[in-house]
Order: sequence, then structure tokens, then C-alpha cells
Amino acid sequence: MNEGAFDRIRNEQFRGKIVSAEEAASWIQDGMKLGLSGFTRAGDAKAVPTALVNKAKTESFKVDVYTGASLGPEVDQYMAEANIINKRWPFQADPLMRKKINAGEIIYVDQHLSHTAELVRSGLIGPIDFAIVEAMAITEEGLIIPTTSVGNSAIYVEHAKHVIIELNVSHPSELEGIHDIYIPAKQGEREPIPLTKVDQRIGTIGISVDPDKVVGIVVSYQPDAPSTIVPPDEETALMANHFLQFLREEVKSGRLTEELAPLQSGVGSIANAVLSGFLNSEFSELEIYSEVLQDAVFDLMDAGKVKYASGCSFTLSEEKGYQVYENIEKYRDQLILRPQELSNHPEIIRRLGLISINTALECDIYGNVNSTHISGTKMMNGIGGSGDYARNARLGIFLTKSIAKNGKISSIVPFVSHVDHTEHDVDVIVTEQGYADLRGLAPKERAQKIIDNCAHPMYRPQLQAYFDEALEQTGGHQTPHNLDKAFTWYTNLAKKGTMLDTVFEVVQ
Amino acid sequence: MNEGAFDRIRNEQFRGKIVSAEEAASWIQDGMKLGLSGFTRAGDAKAVPTALVNKAKTESFKVDVYTGASLGPEVDQYMAEANIINKRWPFQADPLMRKKINAGEIIYVDQHLSHTAELVRSGLIGPIDFAIVEAMAITEEGLIIPTTSVGNSAIYVEHAKHVIIELNVSHPSELEGIHDIYIPAKQGEREPIPLTKVDQRIGTIGISVDPDKVVGIVVSYQPDAPSTIVPPDEETALMANHFLQFLREEVKSGRLTEELAPLQSGVGSIANAVLSGFLNSEFSELEIYSEVLQDAVFDLMDAGKVKYASGCSFTLSEEKGYQVYENIEKYRDQLILRPQELSNHPEIIRRLGLISINTALECDIYGNVNSTHISGTKMMNGIGGSGDYARNARLGIFLTKSIAKNGKISSIVPFVSHVDHTEHDVDVIVTEQGYADLRGLAPKERAQKIIDNCAHPMYRPQLQAYFDEALEQTGGHQTPHNLDKAFTWYTNLAKKGTMLDTVFEVVQ
Repeated sequence: MNEGAFDRIRNEQFRGKIVSAEEAASWIQDGMKLGLSGFTRAGDAKAVPTALVNKAKTESFKVDVYTGASLGPEVDQYMAEANIINKRWPFQADPLMRKKINAGEIIYVDQHLSHTAELVRSGLIGPIDFAIVEAMAITEEGLIIPTTSVGNSAIYVEHAKHVIIELNVSHPSELEGIHDIYIPAKQGEREPIPLTKVDQRIGTIGISVDPDKVVGIVVSYQPDAPSTIVPPDEETALMANHFLQFLREEVKSGRLTEELAPLQSGVGSIANAVLSGFLNSEFSELEIYSEVLQDAVFDLMDAGKVKYASGCSFTLSEEKGYQVYENIEKYRDQLILRPQELSNHPEIIRRLGLISINTALECDIYGNVNSTHISGTKMMNGIGGSGDYARNARLGIFLTKSIAKNGKISSIVPFVSHVDHTEHDVDVIVTEQGYADLRGLAPKERAQKIIDNCAHPMYRPQLQAYFDEALEQTGGHQTPHNLDKAFTWYTNLAKKGTMLDTVFEVVQ
Repeated sequence: MNEGAFDRIRNEQFRGKIVSAEEAASWIQDGMKLGLSGFTRAGDAKAVPTALVNKAKTESFKVDVYTGASLGPEVDQYMAEANIINKRWPFQADPLMRKKINAGEIIYVDQHLSHTAELVRSGLIGPIDFAIVEAMAITEEGLIIPTTSVGNSAIYVEHAKHVIIELNVSHPSELEGIHDIYIPAKQGEREPIPLTKVDQRIGTIGISVDPDKVVGIVVSYQPDAPSTIVPPDEETALMANHFLQFLREEVKSGRLTEELAPLQSGVGSIANAVLSGFLNSEFSELEIYSEVLQDAVFDLMDAGKVKYASGCSFTLSEEKGYQVYENIEKYRDQLILRPQELSNHPEIIRRLGLISINTALECDIYGNVNSTHISGTKMMNGIGGSGDYARNARLGIFLTKSIAKNGKISSIVPFVSHVDHTEHDVDVIVTEQGYADLRGLAPKERAQKIIDNCAHPMYRPQLQAYFDEALEQTGGHQTPHNLDKAFTWYTNLAKKGTMLDTVFEVVQ
């Protein structure tokens, strides 16, 4: 299945460019800006980052790291550990990097994932000194064929001064042809993006590059780090049921057909688990238009439930990844990987009318969502693409378990400690307790529904007491709050180890 | 200039349908849903609402009122006063209605202005019992020609069970031809919207309607209520200068050309005043792609600075309105009015790369913006189109004076009491003190810049103290906060009448 590196460089101009990772790393200097391939641990450059970590043992330098999204350990763990990252854009999800970010040691710009490419194109980000992108082949025409993600690779290659290709021969050659690279022109000069169907191809199978910019090709053999998701559990199964129940009501009302609408599902275990819920549902002929394609998408393909999936990466568990690669011929005709600018583009999201499913850290009684900050201050991962989708989709659905840490934390709170998605963008909240359909409701209507349907029973009286008191104090304002008490849930958690007020403990 | 009503009904099928406003009002029953024309006091139905207010003297009923945006006094003041509005969507800006909303007497759904049409189309809003739309003519083909706004009229007419037309002969016949009505198909079935230039026409000059649905035509003579904006002042002049300075830096850096990019400017005095700033600038050949076109747009046309303006309404002061109507021939070739779904469409906003200017009630040190709620609970107007623009534009710029109520209120606070625009969408904040370009900055970088450049000097030490303490307490978390103190500024304001802490008063 795997050919040698030389066979995969099918254009003469590129063949003489093979260098060691160490040599490539030696070109990278303090203060440089690197545009790396990779999206949610998939298709990331690995060899040069590893060489940079080694180089850091004898040389002091820092670089700015721009990527598609979170990368595997070579960048987001080892480079962070080696203290060679100054600034990191636009998403990460690594425990060690997170620690460094929250210690003020790495500057982190948390950004809508469709926005980064526009900022590179406009010149705000840049100039990128080196684009370092993983590829599985270089075609006769000199196109770079990406691997398991497209992410921002095409835009970095276009705008970088120099390009380093990591030719990773661990990827099967059958991946070639699943990518569709389309790069919009500058804002104000571009045409409508012609995409109207999930399975439509509008670009090329690889990334165009000026061969003179390619200064080195590093051969690599290292597979992607497997995803870190955990399997569905009892609570995610309940959430999946509530979500399916909501969809059934939409079909019954005539607002959706049996084929639903293209689905987007956010990164992580909960969104993956809820998507898995379709396995045991009556729905089939599903289409996926998402950023990362996780295990559930391929499980649904195996079950004949998904007819087509478009994403900008696939990030799989070790087991699923192995199975998919062994049977890549079977999947490839149902798959497209696009640049994240396309997978997350408001134009396409709105046109196709996606059903968007993302995970919240916490929601408040008015439907505002915190996706990023623990107790309002500590960065968890980042907003990712959730804002691209929730604002522009047909349905912006957020998932969260109603409690965390054995009930010490309620994920439904009076006032979220950080707002990533405002009440205007949050259509439905799903917890294991039930779902709240918030569309067309005013804040006070929303509050009662969220408390009744989504909060954990142990926290309902405390939430109701907050809401009732705020309602009375304000005399019925549009959004009743008691700002004196709005954040006491977090200060209680910090001081007493639980959000639960003593007075309500009896209700448990 | 004005012909009689009969001459303006150029299709035979419609001529027998003239009824009195009272008769039309008699059809409207308790519990009905009305879809009204009008956007920011322009082109609203006036006669039937007035008749409904009269009818309420002898009959008890309530209706749900869906519009484009805020309407003139006939609906948002008098109907509110008469207690005949149950639910109001998606925007209002009337002092009396606001009072009723914050007393819990009117249910108010505050919504992104591009979203309402999608919800009507999907069936979530509806069925609309009566669409009541102002028109200036009905063409030979039976097209309804709107007046000074398009708003949501076309979608309400399409989806209503019955249509009442208010034929308002106070509008000059030369308005005909300035509208461009394009209605996207359902999500998932639509083509790309072909609009790539501000001055491009992609639709028809009027709204198609099934003549059988038109149950009555009410003749009206009442002009639009003039806008309530106040003229530029010393502070808005400073804000305009800072804004222009920011644009000059963008041109210098090569990120913008001298022609800039199409401008959107939000409703209200401050955005209008800042737009006026272009009068005394080197910039010309400007294009406007906005929702409401206010006085400044026409002043800039008069000065030869604006070559084309596309909006969904124009809302003018009495004086400017008179001048524009007297010279409508001069303006009409530089104007298009579109449905608000088009003026505010993420697809178009992103494609054209708008420079978006909207007003904030307050901003926090991390760049989150409150556009809607006074002290977090009381609704002011609503989010309007600001979210459609800020998320999807090239540049999301927010304006606010740094203090209000003679310094008792700081518009720069530690943590906004309501979030309408998150840090991810706020690129630049402008106050009379200066501007903060937040693009590509992490939260701690943003905080220092906002405090230094935008806060009023009397509040800078207090903001700095909050930030420094939060930084120390968290040890440098991504977004330092002290949640115990985050909202004390509002509780101080409520208790002591000022946000200013005694300890910092000396600094004034």
C-alpha cells in the first residue's frame, strides 16, 4: 500500500529537495512565524517540530505557531514543554499547553476557525516565514496532496515566504483524491463560492505551490496521534435520545424532512457520542458537513446511515483509524476534506442550513454559553468553529452534562462566567435531563424552560430561587439578574468546593 | 409629483380592493400574528395600526407584532400604550415600549435582523395571519412597490395568509425603481446569492404577491416619522477622527486601499456622527452597504464622497428627509433598497468584506460588548443587525463614549453586564479618548490597550487596579478576573449613584 518517498514525489522539480528534519529545523530562527498543517491532531507536521524541540536543547529561540486547530503532542505538548512557543493561534487542546497559557507563559489567540485564513489573506497575520505542511504525495503537476486534514495549509502555503513539506509515507496512497482545495479570492474581489451540495467538488485535489518557495522536503513515517475521545456513556446516551426527540418533533412539525439537513458535530467526546446516537435511530441518508470527522461519522457510514461526509480533517481513535485505513477504498467515495475556511464558512453554513451540534462548558438560564473558560478565567481549549456554526446555521444546538465533578459544579448557572455564544445564537440546549428549545422565546421564557428541562434536579431549586428573586427585584426586566449574586456560584465553588448552597442541600 | 391613489394602482385586479383602515382593522382578531413593513421608522404601516388603537377602545385583543426593525409611534408607541401587543419581534427602540418590556407587559424577542426571514421561511415563525405593508404603487404586473424600507415585507407577504396594503401617496413616485427584491430559496435548496458588488441588482423592483391574498388596500397620506438622531458633538467628532486615523493606518499598511471597503453603519446618533466624519477626510469614492441609511449617507452623497449606497431603509431627520424627497431624482441612481435578509446576509457581508461600525452601550476590558441591556437587566433597544455584521465583516468596529451621565458611568468596565458581542468579534473599539485595535491580541494584551486607549482618564486607575489584582490573583490566567468584584461597578452605581470608587476620586 505504501510506496517509498521517492515514488510519491512525482514532479522532478521537487525530487532534489529532500532534507533531514534537523536541517529544516536549522533554518528556523528566533521570532519567526510558522504556519503549520494540522487540525485536531490530524495531518500535522511532526518531524520538523520534533527537530525544533531537539534544537531547543542547545539554542534559545521562540516562534509563533499558527495552525488549523489543535495539533498532536509534537507541537502542542513537546514544543510547549520546551518553551519555544511565543504565540499560539487559533486553537489548542493540550493539557500542558493549557497550563502554560494559564500561567502567562504562552500568548494564546482564541479565534473563530474560519477567520484565520481571512486574516492571513488581508495581511494582518504575517508574513508567515515558513509553512510546514504534511503531505502524502506531490503530483506530476506539483500539487501538494495533504493527508488527514486540510486545515489552513493551503492559505499558509500561499502566503508563506518558504515552504517545507513533510512527506509522510505512513498514509495510504488511496487518500489521494479525497481533498478538494478551493481558496476564495480577497474580500471584495471574490465570486460566490459555488458549493451548494455536501458532496460537490469545486477545487483541485491538492495545494498549488510555487516550486521555488519549497525549500525542503522532509520524509516522515509517523502516524497521527490517535484521538483522545472517550466512548459514549449512560449520560451521553440520554443526551442523544433527547437530541433525537427534538429532531423528531421538527420532522413532525414539517420544519425538517426525514433526511434532516447536513449535520455539523463539534470536536470531543460528547458531540461524538451524541452523533453516535443516530446508529439506533430511524434516521438514515444523513449528510455530514463538519470540520472534524470523528469515529461516529465512520461508524454511521459502516451502518449505512451516512451517505456523505465533508470535513476539514478526520481524527480517529487508534482502533477506528486502523480500520478506516485498512478499508480506505470503501470510504473514499463518501468523503471530502476541504480547507477549514470552507468547512466553516458562514456563506456555506447558512446556505446549506446546517444542524450544528457543539459542546458547552456551561450555559446560563438565559441561554448564553461558555465554551472556553473554567470559572471565567482559565482557558480550556478554545472556541474553535462553534461560533462559525452556531451563528450561521439553521439550528445552533449546544450539549452539556447538567453537572460536573459529582455534582459539585452545575453546568447550568445564573450567569456564565464567560460568554462565547450569546442568547441570540443558542437555539437548543441538551443535557442528560432533557432539552430546551429556546427558539422564539424571550429571556424570561427561556429561563424557566432551561431550569425545568436542562438543570440537574439538585440545582433546580437554587436556580429557581435566583430567577424568582431577580424577577421580583427588577420588577420583570427583560433579563432579570441580581448582579450581587450572579457570580457567587463560582466564589462558593472556589471557597467551599461546591456550587451548591447549604440551604438547598436538603433537596438532593 | 404625487398622483392620486387610483393612478398608483396600475393593475385592474387590485383596484376594487380599497377599504378604510377601520374596516381592515376589523378583520384583525385577538391572538393573531401580524407581519408589518417598516425598518427604523421608515416605510412602516401607519393607518391600520392607528385604527387598531382606536378599535382597542371598545374591544379587548392582543396581537403578536413582527416587523423589520423599530417602527414609528403608531406601532411601537401607541399600540404599546393601548396594551394590544402581546409579543414583539425582532427589534424596537421606543421609550414607552421599552418601559412595557421591562415591566414584563410585552414579551420581546431580540434577534439578529437577518435571522427573522429564515425563521418565517422555516415555519418556526408563523403562520402570519396578516401582512400589512406600506407601498407607494402597485405595478401593471401586480408587484407591490415598497416605500422607504424593504425590511421583512417580502417574506411576510410571501408567507402570510392575507395581505393588506397601505398605499401611501405621500411618497414621491420617483421612489419606484430603487428597490431590489430578491428572496433566497429554502436553506438546503438555494443557489449562491449572486451579489458581488454594492450597486448590483439581482431581483425585481417590487414584491410579488398572489392577488387573491390581498384582501384590502388602505390609502394613506402620512409621512414617515422623522428620525430622532441628534447632531454630531465634540465627542463624536473626536471619535470620528480616531476612526479615520485607524483607517489611515490600515491604508498605510496596505491592508486597505484608498477606496477602503463597503461601509456599514449602525442605527443611531453616534454611528451617524462618526460616518459624517468622512466629510472632512481625504477619503472619497466610498460605498455603503448597510441596513439603515441615515442623514450622514446623504450628506456624503451631497459632498460627492459616496458613489453608491445599498440599504434596507432610509431614516432621515425632518430637514434631510425634505431635502432628499425634493431632489429624489438626483439620489435615486445611487441608491438601492433591499430586503434586510440581503442587507444583513452573512454570505454578502463576508464576501464584500464590509467595514462594520456599530454602537456599544459598554465594553469590557477584554473586548466583550453589551449593545442591549442597561446594568445587565433592562432592555434598551436590541441587538439589531450588529451581530450579523460584526461576526462576518472584514472589520467589526464598536463605538461608545467612554463615560455617560457626567462620569457617573464608565462605558469601559471590568466585565460587561450583558454580552451581545464576544471578544472574538470585536476588532476595534473607538471612544473619544482613542481607539484600541484588538486584532490578533490575546485577552491580557487587549485589556491593557483598552484601558490605556479607550477608558476615560478618571476611570483608568480603577480599571488598572481591577486588572492588576485579577492578574495577580489568577497568576496570569488567559482572562484574569476577580468574579467577586466583577460586577461591583453596577452595584455601586445602583447604591451610590456612581461607578467611581471613593479611593479613586482624587485622581479626577
